[in-house]
Amino acid sequence: MSSLSISQRGIEMPASPIRKLVPFAENAKQKGIHVYHLNIGQPDIETPPAAMDAVRHNHMRVLEYTHSAGNESYRQKLALYYKSIGIDVSSEEILITTGGSEAIFFSFLACLNPGDEVIIPEPFYANYNGFAVEAGVSVVPVPSSIQDGFALPPVSDFEKLITDRTKAIIICNPNNPTGYLYSPEEMHNLRDIILKHNLYLFSDEAYREFSYGDTPISAMSLKGAEQNVILTDTISKRYSACGARMGALVTKNKEVLETVLKFAQARLSPPGFAQILGEAATELPADYFEGTRQEYKNRRDALVRRLNAMEGVFCPNPGGAFYAMASLPVADSEDFCRWLLEDFSYNNQTLMMAPAPGFYATPDLVKTRSGWPMCSMSRR
Amino acid sequence: MSSLSISQRGIEMPASPIRKLVPFAENAKQKGIHVYHLNIGQPDIETPPAAMDAVRHNHMRVLEYTHSAGNESYRQKLALYYKSIGIDVSSEEILITTGGSEAIFFSFLACLNPGDEVIIPEPFYANYNGFAVEAGVSVVPVPSSIQDGFALPPVSDFEKLITDRTKAIIICNPNNPTGYLYSPEEMHNLRDIILKHNLYLFSDEAYREFSYGDTPISAMSLKGAEQNVILTDTISKRYSACGARMGALVTKNKEVLETVLKFAQARLSPPGFAQILGEAATELPADYFEGTRQEYKNRRDALVRRLNAMEGVFCPNPGGAFYAMASLPVADSEDFCRWLLEDFSYNNQTLMMAPAPGFYATPDLVKTRSGWPMCSMSRR
Repeated sequence: MSSLSISQRGIEMPASPIRKLVPFAENAKQKGIHVYHLNIGQPDIETPPAAMDAVRHNHMRVLEYTHSAGNESYRQKLALYYKSIGIDVSSEEILITTGGSEAIFFSFLACLNPGDEVIIPEPFYANYNGFAVEAGVSVVPVPSSIQDGFALPPVSDFEKLITDRTKAIIICNPNNPTGYLYSPEEMHNLRDIILKHNLYLFSDEAYREFSYGDTPISAMSLKGAEQNVILTDTISKRYSACGARMGALVTKNKEVLETVLKFAQARLSPPGFAQILGEAATELPADYFEGTRQEYKNRRDALVRRLNAMEGVFCPNPGGAFYAMASLPVADSEDFCRWLLEDFSYNNQTLMMAPAPGFYATPDLVKTRSGWPMCSMSRR
Repeated sequence: MSSLSISQRGIEMPASPIRKLVPFAENAKQKGIHVYHLNIGQPDIETPPAAMDAVRHNHMRVLEYTHSAGNESYRQKLALYYKSIGIDVSSEEILITTGGSEAIFFSFLACLNPGDEVIIPEPFYANYNGFAVEAGVSVVPVPSSIQDGFALPPVSDFEKLITDRTKAIIICNPNNPTGYLYSPEEMHNLRDIILKHNLYLFSDEAYREFSYGDTPISAMSLKGAEQNVILTDTISKRYSACGARMGALVTKNKEVLETVLKFAQARLSPPGFAQILGEAATELPADYFEGTRQEYKNRRDALVRRLNAMEGVFCPNPGGAFYAMASLPVADSEDFCRWLLEDFSYNNQTLMMAPAPGFYATPDLVKTRSGWPMCSMSRR
């Protein structure tokens, strides 16, 4: 007889890395202390009013299912947006997803079998672990180093980890949680690895617009790797629209896209209002993002300068995104983050940060690097 | 060396059952023929204007992530809605999902291991197959019979199929695609089975309000089975809001709910605008649905009466939902549905229906029952 039990993947599923800290933040707020939430990538920049107005002014009589791949009108305008930034895709090569999360999960489902391995430069976005557990896939971390500013690990480090179960590499560029922006040379190295070993490259480019010097190179532009690359995207950060849950999966690989469409059909359609928002956002002026970029650059400059001015602190200068990971002279970043919430305040204010271990899969590195908290510059 | 291939689940994933018919429907439209889409559960009834207006009149400056379990204010009002229909749950026992689809998928992920079996009365909602493939779960169909109007199969039929891999039963009540509404006796039989064999009961109650005589009994009210039952719900049909993608998972089983929350955290939050719509809909007058119910009842009465007046046709009278499945004197329902689109028209109009085989997992039954198309009364 079977028993009423939780599934193995349910048990293995990681809880949110900041879960343990939430009660301390709530206590601090009850004591009247203002908590700056540097622990999450939730921008405080205004969602473009013109895009919000498109939702407000909708005249729909019936809120119907949309096409499972998303509205054709939205996909056409999104193709124009991609063309404007040098990514040459048609509307048929785009599938609208419920957030970037679903794009990543669909990539796992369509390309990887249970037991297959995916290599990810570490530290990495914690929820990749969650999607891997859901899909029964093994995450194989390839450590990057804070001394190099979290640059892409050398090709030889990847090759040491490639087995006959390795099916894909995931990158996030610019990177969440390190802010690192991959160089042209690093992107070409990645191209060589995936072509040599016939791997998929899942490229999470949620922070494309958030670069403070060099322009990020999309994996979609890697010549000869068109069949290997799946771009996962979202409007959450670009347009401060995290709550929309509006992402996209983009690929020139027809077989992958047809397979992903079957997964998309099972969940019927992506959210309707959010597609109106996303479509309107594609029509914003080309320089709309400049003010936002300057604001984030100012925050980065201030944060990194002040951190590095402190004794025993080292914070690499992130080339993109809105995160920074710093090495602090503390023994345990979780204890430190809890202390900030529980015992510390300055002018009745304190910070909530995300302890680094949540972004690591390698137990030893979690230990030695546990002094690093991650902070997000998405909010002031 | 690994190869760039599609995953096994990607290959096994069923395509939409009406996919093959879509080009014929498009051709018919291009010839100027009006196609009545009786193939999909997309209501043509107006989405409540007051709920749409709540979205239109939102004053959000930033469209932020909501809580992963959904806004607390929405969950509280949803708990009141459930109480008003006799389901006694608190806001902590509700998790807001991206459509009913996600609620079903999360139930699979949290409760079932790959290789586990779930028993489903057949015919059943085709996308259960898709979620099962995604979760690596085996669907074990227990055939219901058109002669009995698709009543719940006898307890002995279930018990013959229960193995040590059986972990759950899924019901959809009132049923998609048959419209059958389970009786109190059938619900008590289900309760006995799940308690005796220690199984989960996933109860899809998307069509709760769509009943034309007896009131559906929620699985949540089965005494003694509180830990076994997971209710999956959606506002898609109730409020003609399919495009919102707004559902809920409700259970008194704390361990299941805590596990589901981890899956919910990985995808960050359910859609934001849709939660505003859903919350506003909970405040509609209690009799709001009466007009809609009468409209659907009229459609059912007309459809069933006219079908049964035709020689060789048998259509059981559905007690709920807005679907009907009929036995027609044709050899192959897919051919028949294609013929309706390709060669038939009356006053320049035709019908699109969904062939029954898409709702069956048992190959023999697909064959012998291939003369049955399913039609939806959600649109005129």
